[in-house]
Amino acid sequence: MNWNRFREETLEKYRKAEIDGWIKPITDDINSAECFVTLSSCAGRFAVMDMPEFGDKRNSVFLGKWHDVPAVEDVLNAIRRGVMETWFMLHPPILHVSCKDLESARILLDILRKSGFRRAGIISLKRMVVEIAGQERIEFIAARNGQVFTDAVVLRENYLEAVKKLEMGRKRFEKFHSIFREVFL
Amino acid sequence: MNWNRFREETLEKYRKAEIDGWIKPITDDINSAECFVTLSSCAGRFAVMDMPEFGDKRNSVFLGKWHDVPAVEDVLNAIRRGVMETWFMLHPPILHVSCKDLESARILLDILRKSGFRRAGIISLKRMVVEIAGQERIEFIAARNGQVFTDAVVLRENYLEAVKKLEMGRKRFEKFHSIFREVFL
Repeated sequence: MNWNRFREETLEKYRKAEIDGWIKPITDDINSAECFVTLSSCAGRFAVMDMPEFGDKRNSVFLGKWHDVPAVEDVLNAIRRGVMETWFMLHPPILHVSCKDLESARILLDILRKSGFRRAGIISLKRMVVEIAGQERIEFIAARNGQVFTDAVVLRENYLEAVKKLEMGRKRFEKFHSIFREVFL
Repeated sequence: MNWNRFREETLEKYRKAEIDGWIKPITDDINSAECFVTLSSCAGRFAVMDMPEFGDKRNSVFLGKWHDVPAVEDVLNAIRRGVMETWFMLHPPILHVSCKDLESARILLDILRKSGFRRAGIISLKRMVVEIAGQERIEFIAARNGQVFTDAVVLRENYLEAVKKLEMGRKRFEKFHSIFREVFL
């Protein structure tokens, strides 16, 4: 499939998809440039996940998932509902962009480098997919088999750090957004 | 600088460098293939870091750093020495490989995909640098201003998960190693 057709079909799916609020102005602008199209995006999120063991995604369930900062009580209540391995996580924002050709990918990587994304990379050469991911994370096990071993202090301290890290991660995306607009719009 | 000269100079530095024990057989084999040379590597590690605030690397200090699994008491003692923001971290193994050309990078990415590294990517087109990083991490704040708020249970639970995650991360590298050997050696 040639680039224009691939991009048009991907854009059609994009228009129907629910895009996380904060990231939408960024994906909209990327998608208005003819040599790019976004494949997937996440604005970053707080998550509480229950999993049989780490990495077993098929049998994992979200006990809570928030793209906006939740109340610390809501996080604690989600952890209390866990019955397996219960993890608290801050996932950074992430974006996958397909580029028309290697030259477009090169320009995108240059902009990303300037925005502070030192580890953005081309993860697929077939569709020239560039992954843009934040580095700011938090991840720890908070309960096992329903026994919550993180008390209110541990949780609040990490919750507060998560708020800061999400903000830092998003700031870097906003810097990228502003340089991208200068170059392409 | 052409590829052969760049590779030879990089190999010279590699031979003088201290490479983390577990990863050395992998980097040795990569470096024996003429179209690749490793730029940097870390075998994965446990770390306790003290930082003024997250992201301020310049003023951060390691209170403890272990490429082999430490005793849980050593981790706790390191946390107790913290006076700023004190973080417990499991860093996954990571490897940067420079490839002769795009075609070599493509083959390397194919092998990585087959080994389960879905997010390995070319982070620099200038020297065709492929980043290979594990995804298994743990990261949380354990003390602030010398006040340790993670009790022994929280710490032991996360320590045990960190041991498992380091093992999982290294297993994927070993799978990559074995496929790499089949293809190149």
